[in-house]
Amino acid sequence: MKLFHARGSCSLASLIALEEAGAAYELVVMSTKAGDQRRPEYLAVNPKSRVPALVTERGVLTETPAILAFVAQSFPEARLAPLDDPFAFAEAQAFNSYLCATVHVAHAHRHRGYRWADQEASFADMTAKVPENMTACFGLIEQSLLKGPFVLGEAYSICDAYLFTVADWMEGDGVDPTAFPKVLAHRERVSARPAVRKVLAERAA
Amino acid sequence: MKLFHARGSCSLASLIALEEAGAAYELVVMSTKAGDQRRPEYLAVNPKSRVPALVTERGVLTETPAILAFVAQSFPEARLAPLDDPFAFAEAQAFNSYLCATVHVAHAHRHRGYRWADQEASFADMTAKVPENMTACFGLIEQSLLKGPFVLGEAYSICDAYLFTVADWMEGDGVDPTAFPKVLAHRERVSARPAVRKVLAERAA
Repeated sequence: MKLFHARGSCSLASLIALEEAGAAYELVVMSTKAGDQRRPEYLAVNPKSRVPALVTERGVLTETPAILAFVAQSFPEARLAPLDDPFAFAEAQAFNSYLCATVHVAHAHRHRGYRWADQEASFADMTAKVPENMTACFGLIEQSLLKGPFVLGEAYSICDAYLFTVADWMEGDGVDPTAFPKVLAHRERVSARPAVRKVLAERAA
Repeated sequence: MKLFHARGSCSLASLIALEEAGAAYELVVMSTKAGDQRRPEYLAVNPKSRVPALVTERGVLTETPAILAFVAQSFPEARLAPLDDPFAFAEAQAFNSYLCATVHVAHAHRHRGYRWADQEASFADMTAKVPENMTACFGLIEQSLLKGPFVLGEAYSICDAYLFTVADWMEGDGVDPTAFPKVLAHRERVSARPAVRKVLAERAA
C-alpha cells in the first residue's frame, strides 16, 4: 500500500493507524504549500485534490474515516476497532464522522475560507470565528464524546489516532488546551505510544 | 428504535435505510424552523443539536454515515452494504464521508453561514458561492464516484439512500440537474423503490 500524506494535515491519523496495524506501506509526503495536491500526477490518484489517499491493490481509498475503518478491518489482529459489535463500531464511526465533518471543517475555515466564499472580508470573518467554533467542538469532545482513557473507553482504537491528530491543531486554532484536561491528557497518552513516536520522528525528519 | 428526523434534512437517508432494512422503528418528525433541535428534551438525546439521531436499546447514535453503516450491519439480510469485503465497505464509507463532510457542508453554507462567520456580508458571499460548489461536487459524483446504476455498481446500498437525499437539494442550491444525467437517472431510479415511495408518502403527509 502507499499512503499520500501531508505534514500537519489529517492524513497523520491514517499514517498512525497503518503503523499501529503493523502494515507494510510506502509513504509519500506531499507539500500542500507547494501545491503538490494539484499536480496532474496526484489528481490521477485522487481527483478530490486532497490528502489522504491510500493506494491499495484493489484501488484508491480516500476520506479519513473510510481509510481508518479499512485499516482496522484489514488488520483485525491489531484490534483497532470494535469490529464484531455493530453498535460499538457505529459509535466509533460517529466519532470519526464528527471529527471529519464538523471539527475539521471548523478548522479549515481558518486558512481555507476561499473554499466557501470569494471576498477577503469574508475570509477574515471566518478566521476570526475559528477559536470560538473549535473551542465548542473540544468542549463537546471533553464533556460527551471522549469516554477515557481512550475515546471508546479502555481500548485504544482508530478514533484515538484521529483525535490525537485533530487535537494537535488546538493551539494554532486559538483554543486554550488547559480548558480541556481530558483531551490534553489523551493527547499526552497517545503521543507516548511507540507507533506514534515512530511516526512523529519520521514526520519531523 | 426511534429516529429523530427533520423534513428536507439529511436524516431522510437514515429513514430510507431503516425502511429498506425492514426495521421496526418509531419516527419523530422535528421542525428545525421551529427550533425543535434546540429544545432541552432534544439536547438530552443529542447535544450536537442536529438531526439525525437514532435511539437504540444500547444508546444514541448520531452522524449519517455511522447510522447508515449501523443499519446495514444490524440487518445483514437486507444486503445494504458490502459487509464482508473491507475494501468495498471502505469505498461505501468514503462515498458517504464525502457527502457528509464536503457536499453537505457546501450545501449548509447557503442558509447556515452563521455557523462559520458573524457578518451578514459574509453570509451573502457564502450563499452566492453555493451553486458553484455544489455543481463541482455533483460533477465529481457524476464523473468519478457514481458507478451506476447504483453508487457502488449493480447492488443498491446505503450510499444510494444518501445520494438520493443530497441530490434532492440540487435545484434549491442552484445546480442545473440536466448537466448531471447519471445523477438525475439515479434519483429517478431510487425514487421508484417501494421503501422510498413509502417514506416520501409519509414525509409528505
